[in-house]
Amino acid sequence: MTSTVGHRREHDLLGDREVPADAYWGIHTLRASENFPITGTPIAAYPHLVSALAAVKEAAARANEDLGLLPPAKADAIAAACEEIRRGLLHDQFTVDVIQGGAGTSTNMNANEVIANRALELLGHAKGDYHHLHPNEDVNLSQSTNDVYPTAVKVATIIAVRELHTAMETLRGAFAAKAEEFRDILKMGRTQLQDAVPMTLGQEFSAYAVMLEEDQSRLLEAVGLVHEINLGATAIGTGLNAPAGYAEVARGHLAAITGLPLVTAANLVEATQDCGAFVQLSGVLKRIAVKLSKSCNDLRLLSSGPRAGLGEINLPPMQAGSSIMPGKVNPVIPEVVNQVAFEVIGNDVAITMAAEAGQLQLNAFEPIILHSLSESITHLRAACLVLAERCVAGITANTDQLRATVENSIGLVTALNPHIGYSAATSIAKEALATGRGVAELVLEKGLLPPDRLAAVLRPEEVAGQH
Amino acid sequence: MTSTVGHRREHDLLGDREVPADAYWGIHTLRASENFPITGTPIAAYPHLVSALAAVKEAAARANEDLGLLPPAKADAIAAACEEIRRGLLHDQFTVDVIQGGAGTSTNMNANEVIANRALELLGHAKGDYHHLHPNEDVNLSQSTNDVYPTAVKVATIIAVRELHTAMETLRGAFAAKAEEFRDILKMGRTQLQDAVPMTLGQEFSAYAVMLEEDQSRLLEAVGLVHEINLGATAIGTGLNAPAGYAEVARGHLAAITGLPLVTAANLVEATQDCGAFVQLSGVLKRIAVKLSKSCNDLRLLSSGPRAGLGEINLPPMQAGSSIMPGKVNPVIPEVVNQVAFEVIGNDVAITMAAEAGQLQLNAFEPIILHSLSESITHLRAACLVLAERCVAGITANTDQLRATVENSIGLVTALNPHIGYSAATSIAKEALATGRGVAELVLEKGLLPPDRLAAVLRPEEVAGQH
Amino acid sequence: MTSTVGHRREHDLLGDREVPADAYWGIHTLRASENFPITGTPIAAYPHLVSALAAVKEAAARANEDLGLLPPAKADAIAAACEEIRRGLLHDQFTVDVIQGGAGTSTNMNANEVIANRALELLGHAKGDYHHLHPNEDVNLSQSTNDVYPTAVKVATIIAVRELHTAMETLRGAFAAKAEEFRDILKMGRTQLQDAVPMTLGQEFSAYAVMLEEDQSRLLEAVGLVHEINLGATAIGTGLNAPAGYAEVARGHLAAITGLPLVTAANLVEATQDCGAFVQLSGVLKRIAVKLSKSCNDLRLLSSGPRAGLGEINLPPMQAGSSIMPGKVNPVIPEVVNQVAFEVIGNDVAITMAAEAGQLQLNAFEPIILHSLSESITHLRAACLVLAERCVAGITANTDQLRATVENSIGLVTALNPHIGYSAATSIAKEALATGRGVAELVLEKGLLPPDRLAAVLRPEEVAGQH
Amino acid sequence: MTSTVGHRREHDLLGDREVPADAYWGIHTLRASENFPITGTPIAAYPHLVSALAAVKEAAARANEDLGLLPPAKADAIAAACEEIRRGLLHDQFTVDVIQGGAGTSTNMNANEVIANRALELLGHAKGDYHHLHPNEDVNLSQSTNDVYPTAVKVATIIAVRELHTAMETLRGAFAAKAEEFRDILKMGRTQLQDAVPMTLGQEFSAYAVMLEEDQSRLLEAVGLVHEINLGATAIGTGLNAPAGYAEVARGHLAAITGLPLVTAANLVEATQDCGAFVQLSGVLKRIAVKLSKSCNDLRLLSSGPRAGLGEINLPPMQAGSSIMPGKVNPVIPEVVNQVAFEVIGNDVAITMAAEAGQLQLNAFEPIILHSLSESITHLRAACLVLAERCVAGITANTDQLRATVENSIGLVTALNPHIGYSAATSIAKEALATGRGVAELVLEKGLLPPDRLAAVLRPEEVAGQH
Repeated sequence: MTSTVGHRREHDLLGDREVPADAYWGIHTLRASENFPITGTPIAAYPHLVSALAAVKEAAARANEDLGLLPPAKADAIAAACEEIRRGLLHDQFTVDVIQGGAGTSTNMNANEVIANRALELLGHAKGDYHHLHPNEDVNLSQSTNDVYPTAVKVATIIAVRELHTAMETLRGAFAAKAEEFRDILKMGRTQLQDAVPMTLGQEFSAYAVMLEEDQSRLLEAVGLVHEINLGATAIGTGLNAPAGYAEVARGHLAAITGLPLVTAANLVEATQDCGAFVQLSGVLKRIAVKLSKSCNDLRLLSSGPRAGLGEINLPPMQAGSSIMPGKVNPVIPEVVNQVAFEVIGNDVAITMAAEAGQLQLNAFEPIILHSLSESITHLRAACLVLAERCVAGITANTDQLRATVENSIGLVTALNPHIGYSAATSIAKEALATGRGVAELVLEKGLLPPDRLAAVLRPEEVAGQH
Repeated sequence: MTSTVGHRREHDLLGDREVPADAYWGIHTLRASENFPITGTPIAAYPHLVSALAAVKEAAARANEDLGLLPPAKADAIAAACEEIRRGLLHDQFTVDVIQGGAGTSTNMNANEVIANRALELLGHAKGDYHHLHPNEDVNLSQSTNDVYPTAVKVATIIAVRELHTAMETLRGAFAAKAEEFRDILKMGRTQLQDAVPMTLGQEFSAYAVMLEEDQSRLLEAVGLVHEINLGATAIGTGLNAPAGYAEVARGHLAAITGLPLVTAANLVEATQDCGAFVQLSGVLKRIAVKLSKSCNDLRLLSSGPRAGLGEINLPPMQAGSSIMPGKVNPVIPEVVNQVAFEVIGNDVAITMAAEAGQLQLNAFEPIILHSLSESITHLRAACLVLAERCVAGITANTDQLRATVENSIGLVTALNPHIGYSAATSIAKEALATGRGVAELVLEKGLLPPDRLAAVLRPEEVAGQH
Repeated sequence: MTSTVGHRREHDLLGDREVPADAYWGIHTLRASENFPITGTPIAAYPHLVSALAAVKEAAARANEDLGLLPPAKADAIAAACEEIRRGLLHDQFTVDVIQGGAGTSTNMNANEVIANRALELLGHAKGDYHHLHPNEDVNLSQSTNDVYPTAVKVATIIAVRELHTAMETLRGAFAAKAEEFRDILKMGRTQLQDAVPMTLGQEFSAYAVMLEEDQSRLLEAVGLVHEINLGATAIGTGLNAPAGYAEVARGHLAAITGLPLVTAANLVEATQDCGAFVQLSGVLKRIAVKLSKSCNDLRLLSSGPRAGLGEINLPPMQAGSSIMPGKVNPVIPEVVNQVAFEVIGNDVAITMAAEAGQLQLNAFEPIILHSLSESITHLRAACLVLAERCVAGITANTDQLRATVENSIGLVTALNPHIGYSAATSIAKEALATGRGVAELVLEKGLLPPDRLAAVLRPEEVAGQH
Repeated sequence: MTSTVGHRREHDLLGDREVPADAYWGIHTLRASENFPITGTPIAAYPHLVSALAAVKEAAARANEDLGLLPPAKADAIAAACEEIRRGLLHDQFTVDVIQGGAGTSTNMNANEVIANRALELLGHAKGDYHHLHPNEDVNLSQSTNDVYPTAVKVATIIAVRELHTAMETLRGAFAAKAEEFRDILKMGRTQLQDAVPMTLGQEFSAYAVMLEEDQSRLLEAVGLVHEINLGATAIGTGLNAPAGYAEVARGHLAAITGLPLVTAANLVEATQDCGAFVQLSGVLKRIAVKLSKSCNDLRLLSSGPRAGLGEINLPPMQAGSSIMPGKVNPVIPEVVNQVAFEVIGNDVAITMAAEAGQLQLNAFEPIILHSLSESITHLRAACLVLAERCVAGITANTDQLRATVENSIGLVTALNPHIGYSAATSIAKEALATGRGVAELVLEKGLLPPDRLAAVLRPEEVAGQH
């Protein structure tokens, strides 16, 4: 078979094509790259996925070897190629676009081709000499895209979620440290942006820490479901073409290679078509986004000013805030976190639509689910780290301003409810509001409480600290 | 045929059923009511839709009469029944659930049955004597649910949108009146919640008025597209079973009855399966919701306080704000508008999914589109009116507080940029921030500008008023 | 104080108003009804919420009694009124609109007023004689909307979710019964709508049952989080105005009254502002909606026809399908379920936005969260029941058609992969496709396998049944 | 001032930093790159934006020159630098992350710095010698991020939308060509996936072409609104620091440079805070996505098979469809288009949230709006081209199969409605369904129509062709 110089000729169902001689990928990858010029982002940009694919392929090769389907020499060569990929080599050969038709077939075939050609080299053959070791018949043996792709996506997702969890812990710690630092600083609590009752700034920051802690728990629960894989399901979950026992042996190898406690789904037909675990995880990522965005909204509000805002806290200045307004410093870190949150919430809708669009025995739209999930997880991780390190850690409080607001507040009157009753308290509040006078002086003036009793009741530390 | 006392027996494809003797609806409505016990909300709760159905049926009857398909006596009886419905009678007979399967067939059949039975009465026959006048063969003559239902939904939508437009005009007027009232009140403008440069409160409210005005224009454009109907398309847009010329004659009658400048779609096959006009309209409703929500967020923020907030404006108190905190008054009107906005944005997603789910020659999910659109339109209308009348109209400004903030602001320094340069301005800003001192005194102290020149430059009215 | 005949005069922060003499609600409810004319749907339409409010108020009264704050006579009267409400009486007095500003204050006050007036009657006083028993000072004692409202919403949600869970079990059972009934029926499995490999119809229906079972587990997990309440938090979670020990005593009473294993949040400040449990639950409802919609899409696709579709299964006819096309029967039940799913997915976006919009110590937008969640839960429940009883239970299979498709399918070739290799299998598939001939005859003709071996390999029951 | 070798030292509000000596960007870009390590995607990946920024800067420099604020030599140098950027040079210097806090300040400053340093070089100075030409005082003269950034985003968006429009025209043409090619091919039309009435395949494809044509009109309307810019608004729309007449002169230059009919907003305060045009455009992109997705769903459904599906049309095979199932060819092109549609719909939610989150005089979240809009536009463009060229253009019809389905269909009976009445037609349909016999033979057997009359009525070309 003749070929252009610098190229080799490969063949598939549709005919012959030339691929660059030095490419590890082959004809399927070539066609897929032409078919899906959508985002310009290759799957190489998803290193967790590429590594996970290699782990799955290695596990499959070892299982095939164990079950006598693959000669040890081939299995060793495949495993060696996979290990190189898992060490970060050859990632640039994963060139198909992340958003692709075909339910991930092109991603799977890109992996089969790269692994086959690298294994061929390791065995002393030329790239493309597939009669010695074939992308489909050897690398993909006992497998189907239907089980390989979702399994790889799950492994990659678990790793990425663990990194997110660590970043959340960093942020939680930053909030908790501030909660401790600010424990004795009194401030007015607010409901509906209206002055409510006194609290401490420590309580306010503690709430952010606790929210994150709960979200971390939810994240671990959600990623727990992702550990259920369908490797061995092959086409539509029937296990067709995989030998008896393959699913369990392959799972065992994959668990060993990745160090993850993976389990095989009880019903492989269901597991092959179901995207429930991804929808659930995305829902939890959305929940995290909602909380982060709310916390950042608060930080921006509390630091508004410097003169015409609430001015309760100061965010550390990270860059000049304006190209025109000298001295202006803006809350740029919370702002970027807000935007990540909006992106994650939008991604959840994309994932929802993709999951709903599955038909019969397969969901063909897992590539967009992978892309959106991966984007949400990695951007949330970056957002948590940036928020912790470049914002929360450097927040300072305007203590005097905070205390003055409490002492001047109508909201103090609420503390008098149990002592003078709601109706009297309402009157005091009304008068304080109308006259601009303080609550305390009015209570004394009207003889509603003796001074010492009032002082005890109104001691702000007492008010906020009792719970 | 024997019947239980108080019932009459009707027949359809699936067999016989008894319906209450006094019901104007018939067997199809009965089955549909049993099949769709989803929301408990009958289409009677959508009076614009019920009236629009009657208008369509009347137009069809007159077109059939014109084209010699329906005897004048039958056409007159049908038209008389329809007119009663359009006057608000018999609405309680429209009992099928608004969320229903069947692409609106049950809504269409409910109308056919009610109109047939009322027409039978008007002709001196008993309800159910369909051999004199038949729901399908006479009332539905030359029609299909595929064209009747979307046409009725469109007519109903146009009427509802007009009401929304009027309510938006009320709100726009309320904002514009405040813009005029507040035209001379100086305040600090803010970007990213940080003090920026001076402006007037009138400018701030003017922006809300202009936003609404633009949204009103977009709404009129979007509803313009809704005037394109597919009446005469019958099944899948082929016009099968409708006589030549029917579409145009029926459209003419419907335009005359409703007073709306309706046009017939050029491609009826396309028009019958396409929900584009609804998606577009929902997108515009979402845009309106976004703007309303943003404006209400601002109103809540500007009125935050009374002592620990921005305290720039006062919303009129509409009810006691707390069951426990005396004297607390909350921004309840903007809050309810925010929630309507969230609902509208959610409805847009539901409409999007329903539109995307259409298959081949029909979208079977128009009932949820109708429901969601109708909810969005009517709730937005209520929100605009409530916001105009119970909030915006009563807003007052804290003029002194606003001016003091300007005079104390670092942001004034921006006005010095062209006079002393960005670098010097930055230094002044920095020093003012660090020392808590005012910008003006620092500029004078450092001899950067002579006093009279500074006074002219810093005259806040000048700063804000020049544009 | 004089009053119009048939009215009584009440007083609040804003002045006096007359309310109908026979109304159990009072001045706050009156103002709120005027302020929020949004949906026209009163909270009375949410009976679980009204009952839950009564349960919370009863628990609070008993806790106040236990702690010596409320005389037993008052506590008894309040409890008696609450029990009447929980038995379904007085629900028509809960008239405020479900979408309301004020973070639920109006719902709480509506309950306080109705309970106070009914308790006054039980004590032998006139409605409105609040100096005997006061809506705020007695019924709302030790409480705030900030804790009462979310607690009641949670109790109501738990009850509604339990009903949904039961309906899902009904549907799961219906799918599982069909899976058993169809266990021996061979069919072609499909990926990406293209013929893949053989499977059984039982496997297909089993997948639907398993999906639901998993969703049921997720639902129980999500609702578990909803059991964490903040009763006793009062304003912003400080517990201000509630006596020491109140939170625990009140929780105990509420758990006893409702029979629910409620727990008090560890951090009440966080719990008071956090909507995470609702966001999580809505995410799970969305997941359920996604799966239900996918299943219904499949049912509609598999039953397409009768002559120009897949025609694999028959849905029971529930109503005439067309007003114009005789004999047409449409998949109206799956269609209505699809629409409920779209609504639930849209509601999730509304809930997400409302949760994200919370500020500082409170989320003022819980009313729309309640509304959307309640709608999603109750409509999903109705959808599950209707789908189980009016569709799945009556599904029949076109067994001969299904088997013929398998025997004629190219997809059978996949079973030959391990026996003749991927390349040879590809050639056979290509030739079968090009010529329209069967796979089996081609394999024999080319001597790729002896007849007996082929027969064994291609036994479809074997193919599908091995896993 | 000393510097590390290979670096130069720059100074800003926060202090000194070293930047690489050969970098055209400066200290602000450095800090921003450290502050926003979110996506890893620099704004360089948005070439339309980078070019648009250069166009805005060039227009501003020329306006400043015209108004006597900038010496011609400086203006020329700035313009020369901008022209280089617009020719594609220096794009690699635009390194800040696309998702960034600060409302676009960092993007604007990145441009100011790159342009200043290149202009300095052109003037014979060293990079960083800002006293000769300053990023803020010269390049950003009379400007603010508040007007520069949205203006540049709008210019970039207009260019991208034009490219999308062209791609849509390609796709529309491909559908229209198929509509013409398939004009005489009869097939069964379907509603709700059930056989309805006959139509032609040409009509089916014509509908896709018309849908796109309507979407193209909507796109042009929506992008029309984007032509309204706020250049000259400077901070918050007051025009502070810009000389009288600047806005109009700068707009004129920008229109000349870009060739776009830009207009200046009437109310600059409103225009500066409003994202309405982006929300509207995103809504239209979503509408396009909905239609494209629906069309692709249809293409996948109509080409389902090859033996167990509808098999009405054949999509051109673009790649091997399965790693395990030989001969399987999947609808990979429509599948990738579906996924782009889901992404666009998700992006619309992100944009909606970002727009809603604007506060007071500015929306700080335009960077995510830019990112999401740009992604939606460019991915839709790629999807349209790929769908046109790699799918629609190669579609073939299974003519015989299509005709056979029509002749065997129950749906033909609908054509008999006007001739034999709905009730008789229903009976025929029922019998045909029950017996599996054809409609025509039953009609003849029962003498409902004479043979010649029946033949004329049932001539399928007539049925479908009359409209």
